[in-house]
Amino acid sequence: MPDARMLDWISKKRNGETLAEQEISALIQSYTRGDIPEHQMAAWLMAVFFRGMDSREMLALTRSMVESGLRLDLSKLGCPRADKHSTGGVGDKTSLVLAPLVAAAGVAVPMVSGRSLGFTGGTLDKMESIPGLRVNLSVEELLRQLKTVGCAIVGQTEELAPADRKIYALRDATATVECIPLIVASILSKKLAENLDALVLDVKVGNGAFMTSLEAASDLAQNLVAVANSFGTKTCAFLTDMSQPLGFAIGNTLEVTEAIETLKGGGPADFKHLCEYLATQMLLLASPGETLPQARAKISGLLGSGQALERFSRMVEAQGGDPRIVDRDSLLPRSRNQYVVTARQTGCLAGVNARSLGIASMSLAAGSKDPSAGLTVHRKIADWIEKGAPLCTVHYNEANVPALVLSQVESAFQIRNEKIISPPLIKQIIEG
Amino acid sequence: MPDARMLDWISKKRNGETLAEQEISALIQSYTRGDIPEHQMAAWLMAVFFRGMDSREMLALTRSMVESGLRLDLSKLGCPRADKHSTGGVGDKTSLVLAPLVAAAGVAVPMVSGRSLGFTGGTLDKMESIPGLRVNLSVEELLRQLKTVGCAIVGQTEELAPADRKIYALRDATATVECIPLIVASILSKKLAENLDALVLDVKVGNGAFMTSLEAASDLAQNLVAVANSFGTKTCAFLTDMSQPLGFAIGNTLEVTEAIETLKGGGPADFKHLCEYLATQMLLLASPGETLPQARAKISGLLGSGQALERFSRMVEAQGGDPRIVDRDSLLPRSRNQYVVTARQTGCLAGVNARSLGIASMSLAAGSKDPSAGLTVHRKIADWIEKGAPLCTVHYNEANVPALVLSQVESAFQIRNEKIISPPLIKQIIEG
Repeated sequence: MPDARMLDWISKKRNGETLAEQEISALIQSYTRGDIPEHQMAAWLMAVFFRGMDSREMLALTRSMVESGLRLDLSKLGCPRADKHSTGGVGDKTSLVLAPLVAAAGVAVPMVSGRSLGFTGGTLDKMESIPGLRVNLSVEELLRQLKTVGCAIVGQTEELAPADRKIYALRDATATVECIPLIVASILSKKLAENLDALVLDVKVGNGAFMTSLEAASDLAQNLVAVANSFGTKTCAFLTDMSQPLGFAIGNTLEVTEAIETLKGGGPADFKHLCEYLATQMLLLASPGETLPQARAKISGLLGSGQALERFSRMVEAQGGDPRIVDRDSLLPRSRNQYVVTARQTGCLAGVNARSLGIASMSLAAGSKDPSAGLTVHRKIADWIEKGAPLCTVHYNEANVPALVLSQVESAFQIRNEKIISPPLIKQIIEG
Repeated sequence: MPDARMLDWISKKRNGETLAEQEISALIQSYTRGDIPEHQMAAWLMAVFFRGMDSREMLALTRSMVESGLRLDLSKLGCPRADKHSTGGVGDKTSLVLAPLVAAAGVAVPMVSGRSLGFTGGTLDKMESIPGLRVNLSVEELLRQLKTVGCAIVGQTEELAPADRKIYALRDATATVECIPLIVASILSKKLAENLDALVLDVKVGNGAFMTSLEAASDLAQNLVAVANSFGTKTCAFLTDMSQPLGFAIGNTLEVTEAIETLKGGGPADFKHLCEYLATQMLLLASPGETLPQARAKISGLLGSGQALERFSRMVEAQGGDPRIVDRDSLLPRSRNQYVVTARQTGCLAGVNARSLGIASMSLAAGSKDPSAGLTVHRKIADWIEKGAPLCTVHYNEANVPALVLSQVESAFQIRNEKIISPPLIKQIIEG
């Protein structure tokens, strides 16, 4: 049965009017309960796509979606809570480092993460490539682990923001995914249900991200920061470079290995820098007493001293994984074969199609149903490369390198005979 | 299950692209079969609302909706076929006169009509106020009646344009009714399934119509005429005045009585004039041999001679109604009570709120569940009125005139102490 109030809400939004907070709240409640049919919700979502939402509506939508489910009660933890959200990019294994690193600094990190989407890998898929590890913790298990370990990387539960899951599935079927107010409410409803003191947003920009223009990414980031701060969670956003993969590793197990290297104080310079940067901000926002130099030194020290690594190992163990993986690389799955793609000419690395590399890595893993498949990129933009030098290693499990993957990888690297300047890793910072 | 092709068609339309004829055809076929879920169709309709359709898309949509069902096979009738469609207005009983009048001129009229909508009465409801008459003829019964009588006024059958019924119900629930390409396809799919030679469109403009601005009505009319002519049906449109009720009678039985008076050669001047005008055009388009003076004389003669009335009486009889109603008014239901609203001041009738009168009439009929309820308007815009002279008679079946109706009727008439010019009945003619 169509809902008469909903018909009015669709008409209003269609005509460019603003919905009142109570209207949005009633709409989300009724839809989540199943009292508004999918076709009316689909029409409303498309009207929102065209008409947008003002900041008050976006806040009301986010709040209603948070209130559709449970909000974690973290008051008994006795320590501040922070989290990070990334809009997704190729080679982005930041969560695996940040959760234990920031927990080691005394801030609890209840990291509710996602699956791979399109050409980007998913934090949960990466974690699950650790033998035995599970991410489907109940809310009780999550709370217990936050008390004992200080961090967890888990999947979205039934209890947190159920409206988001229902709305996301409908958006996916109705071409209403790419819509800033709906993206804002979807991202934040899950994060704000975690009951955080601080939230750091990593909005990726470039060919390896969903937002390829700085303007669109900046618009999204500003809205996210405004709504989350209005909600009472101290939030800032970084627009970071995704014009090439982050770090070197792309692929579930390969990324876990790179995250462990970084937790040991090594790892690729860009990835390590970003982790330190985001962790410092999480610490600063969650613990207002710290100064920037103190927070920076603390984070750097936790990586150098092995304390962040120890916290990662405890998190893995608490979630059922084998903690010895941090010392014995051989306990993680390994691809049977490797193929090294080399440079066809001498010159400067001018561009990397991160999206193509993401697609190639996803198809290697999907083809062999093995988390060990993926790519290791060897060079960064602005590096000088001699003809014949290795550009990228393909890790595969088939008898031969899949031809499509090989051509995707080979054509992803642009070498030019001119000097190229390295793109800045952090493009913009948006504070509340 | 969401349909992957449909996701693409929604995205394309959302992005302002044009859908190919084959895409629109596959979309309508799949939706009518039930292979595309309602929520995807709802999102697509809302995208069409915002992005519109070009003339090729509108034609493809109309064609696909016609092809979703049966097309009447009228080739054996041995005479041309014509129909009229009105976008609906207050007091618009034109169909009741046109069907028998044009049939008497030798052109078959398979008039598939609609129910009351909003503040406007429905042709089917008016016909059904004739005791015994039924409008739910099967396609076979319709064809037989067209052979024997030359005209019929019937409801939409299951067989004609089933896609339209399904889409219309969804539009009604999703605030996508007011959208020109969807209105065009909905109106024309039903009419073109009748397999006509000629179609005359009466697009009403004014406070008693759905389109209140001349621009919007003209836009709709131009699109209707273009699509129908592209389809091969000779079509023209008239933009006609709805700034006051058409004729005097508003209400099912009252309008039947006024139609009969007009078929006898009498009736209100404006209503008679419009009927003659539309009938002449139907005849001219369907019988290209006729000249305008010949057609006009023929139509006028059929009203004067009683031949049109005789055809009406045969149509009523064929559909199960009592044909003696044309001579004995008392065989039609009569309201128990009448109340005459009079002028509170002397002056010129400057405006009539036809929409309010339509709503008042609908609520009288709905309240008493009696088709005899309604209004008789006594004066036209520009008439000079003395204080105390009758403006409108309320026909009701309750003990007292419903107070809300009375106030609606009283406030619907604007009298001013200045000379007012009568609005032209026909505002614009749009030919193919």
